[in-house]
Amino acid sequence: MNAPFPPYGQSLSLLTDLYELTMASGYWKSDLAEREAVFHLYFRKNPFQGGYVVAGGLGPAVEFVRGFRFDETDLEYLRTLIGTDQKPLFEQPFLEYLEEMEFRCDIDAMPEGQIVFPQEPLVRVRGPLIECQLLESALLNVVNFQSLIATKALRVKTAAEGDPVLEFGLRRAQGVDGALAASRAAYLGGCTGTSNVLAGKLFGIPVKGTHAHSWVMSFDTEQEAFDTWADTMPNNSIFLVDTYDTLEGIDRAIAAGRRLTERGAKMRGIRLDSGDLVDLSREARRRLDRSGLEDARIVGSGDLDEHAIADLKRRGAKIDVWGVGTRLVTGHDDPALGGVYKLTAIRDESGAWSDRVKLSDDLNKISNPGVQQVRRYTAGGRFVGDVIYDERSGIDQPPRAVQASEQETPFEIPPDAEWQDLLQPIFRGGVCLCEPAPLSVARETVRHQREALDPEILRLTNPARYPVGLERRLWESKQELAARHGVSSAASD
Amino acid sequence: MNAPFPPYGQSLSLLTDLYELTMASGYWKSDLAEREAVFHLYFRKNPFQGGYVVAGGLGPAVEFVRGFRFDETDLEYLRTLIGTDQKPLFEQPFLEYLEEMEFRCDIDAMPEGQIVFPQEPLVRVRGPLIECQLLESALLNVVNFQSLIATKALRVKTAAEGDPVLEFGLRRAQGVDGALAASRAAYLGGCTGTSNVLAGKLFGIPVKGTHAHSWVMSFDTEQEAFDTWADTMPNNSIFLVDTYDTLEGIDRAIAAGRRLTERGAKMRGIRLDSGDLVDLSREARRRLDRSGLEDARIVGSGDLDEHAIADLKRRGAKIDVWGVGTRLVTGHDDPALGGVYKLTAIRDESGAWSDRVKLSDDLNKISNPGVQQVRRYTAGGRFVGDVIYDERSGIDQPPRAVQASEQETPFEIPPDAEWQDLLQPIFRGGVCLCEPAPLSVARETVRHQREALDPEILRLTNPARYPVGLERRLWESKQELAARHGVSSAASD
Repeated sequence: MNAPFPPYGQSLSLLTDLYELTMASGYWKSDLAEREAVFHLYFRKNPFQGGYVVAGGLGPAVEFVRGFRFDETDLEYLRTLIGTDQKPLFEQPFLEYLEEMEFRCDIDAMPEGQIVFPQEPLVRVRGPLIECQLLESALLNVVNFQSLIATKALRVKTAAEGDPVLEFGLRRAQGVDGALAASRAAYLGGCTGTSNVLAGKLFGIPVKGTHAHSWVMSFDTEQEAFDTWADTMPNNSIFLVDTYDTLEGIDRAIAAGRRLTERGAKMRGIRLDSGDLVDLSREARRRLDRSGLEDARIVGSGDLDEHAIADLKRRGAKIDVWGVGTRLVTGHDDPALGGVYKLTAIRDESGAWSDRVKLSDDLNKISNPGVQQVRRYTAGGRFVGDVIYDERSGIDQPPRAVQASEQETPFEIPPDAEWQDLLQPIFRGGVCLCEPAPLSVARETVRHQREALDPEILRLTNPARYPVGLERRLWESKQELAARHGVSSAASD
Repeated sequence: MNAPFPPYGQSLSLLTDLYELTMASGYWKSDLAEREAVFHLYFRKNPFQGGYVVAGGLGPAVEFVRGFRFDETDLEYLRTLIGTDQKPLFEQPFLEYLEEMEFRCDIDAMPEGQIVFPQEPLVRVRGPLIECQLLESALLNVVNFQSLIATKALRVKTAAEGDPVLEFGLRRAQGVDGALAASRAAYLGGCTGTSNVLAGKLFGIPVKGTHAHSWVMSFDTEQEAFDTWADTMPNNSIFLVDTYDTLEGIDRAIAAGRRLTERGAKMRGIRLDSGDLVDLSREARRRLDRSGLEDARIVGSGDLDEHAIADLKRRGAKIDVWGVGTRLVTGHDDPALGGVYKLTAIRDESGAWSDRVKLSDDLNKISNPGVQQVRRYTAGGRFVGDVIYDERSGIDQPPRAVQASEQETPFEIPPDAEWQDLLQPIFRGGVCLCEPAPLSVARETVRHQREALDPEILRLTNPARYPVGLERRLWESKQELAARHGVSSAASD
């Protein structure tokens, strides 16, 4: 289920950088506003030193685009802004233009849950220059963050080797939507549930939880706290055992668990939130088993991420369920995906396309021009490579692909490989053609994609590089445009 | 101006971890719900390896508390949750209790903009145990994040040595509110403006901006782009000069600036977004000055943070205005403040207070008990030390303070020091006594506080440690409670 986005009670059309609006005003004044243009949203580097990104945020982005119109309060606010000469920054006729603007763009996008790689467009926007421009900031905000967290979640899930992972990040997430959007993206990427009840309500994510130290501290003794927990919450009976002494806490939880058994109920488990989780979980397992509580599960939490979980597993921790908070919902070691949104083509006065690149001293930062599509090749059930091509010049079968960046080596696509184009039409002429997949379906997409990926690409550290190339005609067009500005981007030069 | 928070069109009462609700249900069933309790929100470690935190988020937190009531859709959702036995997780009478619950707590808090230190409570909540518990997750979310970013902003502002700092983080912030809340907190901490127009509209923050590479790329030549920018935006004329060749871009901006001068307008400046900002800004300054554009300012942007700015200043960059995005709004090198919310006292059946501590193997993680207040001492216009004391046992003048943690040395308060208690009453019996200070006032608080702080504490790296101690009676109470659980927290042991 896709909850209405944004869950704000007001227009989000001003959720944009001021320069988008001043540029819009400039396009309008210089008669460029209606010129057809193409922008692509992509990133240059995988986060977390990993090998991939899980595309996220399309659902909310579509809701944002659908709701995109300037309301009276927006225009009123824009009217108050002044320039350096103390005169209004925006002229009244421009504001009237904004007021009447109707969204007319074509948008193509990767479905949520698609696994994507550097340089590949996640979103392509084509339409009047002014409209493409005005969507930039909000699209980047939503797609960058949700893709970042969906990626982190898949990494954590990979480290957990199939164990359930619960997202517990609300209290340290970056603001209200930093929490809600993270819960959504974490579920997309593979988490089993969230502690965030509002995320459960909005997005249909299963909500999970145990109890806090404050429950234990509200009673005179830990035993009293656990017995009362068993009595009052017999159908949600996980005991947090580390408020005072953890081993004593485990024994007291077992005593409370036995009370449950006597009453015909069942102890669900314990949670360990501090200390050496390897030793403690092994000892807890022994004591639980010895007490006939073999079904009781052990939840581990406390500053966990994919590396900590992999390490705990390697060292033999007996943890069944992983509670992951801060480091998941903030993408702690790499808290922003550097997605960009670049103009790649614009029609000239005669209506002919003029392709564009953004130059850089760093050759890998030179943008790819044109009207791009991504073709993914599959052989023997495995993804074998992606080729970015220009829809206008097309692609041969098999494609003549070259590497996407200077550092990569060219690769060959097997002639019998099957293929699929990844960017799917979402809007045509401003009309939404199809609802983005519900979150539960997008989540399945991640699972399937993951199975089709070489496990070496899923590695947490030093992953293999998935082959992504530019189709030769697109590559040559890029070379030519760069050379026109005196820069060579050819690997062979 | 404090914008209505949250800017969501619906109840945020479910913005909480599930366990707060299951614990609430447990308190209710075991007749503990109405027992008077005290919780404190505090953090243990300064972020960014710095020497302080700027308290942020109180304004939105107060709005959250004021709006705190479960609506019909919340209860309907809670009714759908089931436990391990497939029966409802929450009983109908409990949900009715929630529906009728009226907020009755006392809340005391540090005003926004106050500079605070580890162990000091930013918020103290006192009232029925169930209500204190239900506020935990949302209070932590709002206060943790806004304090983190206000702190980062003051660090950036400190590095900029008084130059204006603009917050440009929307596109890579953590979700919609990750952006809006960050803009608010960055302004609180000292930023001059934001690029985020909605943040400007909601919070009254000045909005600023230049233009993007896409503006330049929309024209056939950079010169045409700059000339058109000058023509269409004469009162906001900052030129981004690094789309193609930066030095050529500077010359073209100068040519456009001269056109503005001829027309009686004024070029505002240029923006450098990549390359060696030291060399480029010095050369840009020379060329601008030589062309009679001495007033044109140079904006620097691109992956900046406090360390990059300090380094650029040290190396002689000629940058007048700093545009800081991703690394500011995500708190990039430390993206979560680890604030916690701990039960510190609860009345027993007889009505007598029973103080509580959360134990830990890490002695510094043992919480402070009681009903705390923070007294700050000032001598000669400088803050000389803070003492955390228990309001019930009071504090002597001069106080007998001891160190707050094992690592610190005890310190003395000068007998003639002036003092102020930092926690101020915000709610009494659920009634809001005073509006939190408007953002513009809170921002001035930061400025004044900063001036009263030893500059060694403001250092970006290896700051001096500000003296914070526990009043002796509070210290002894903590010792005694820890000893009762077999742990000694005494530095002398």
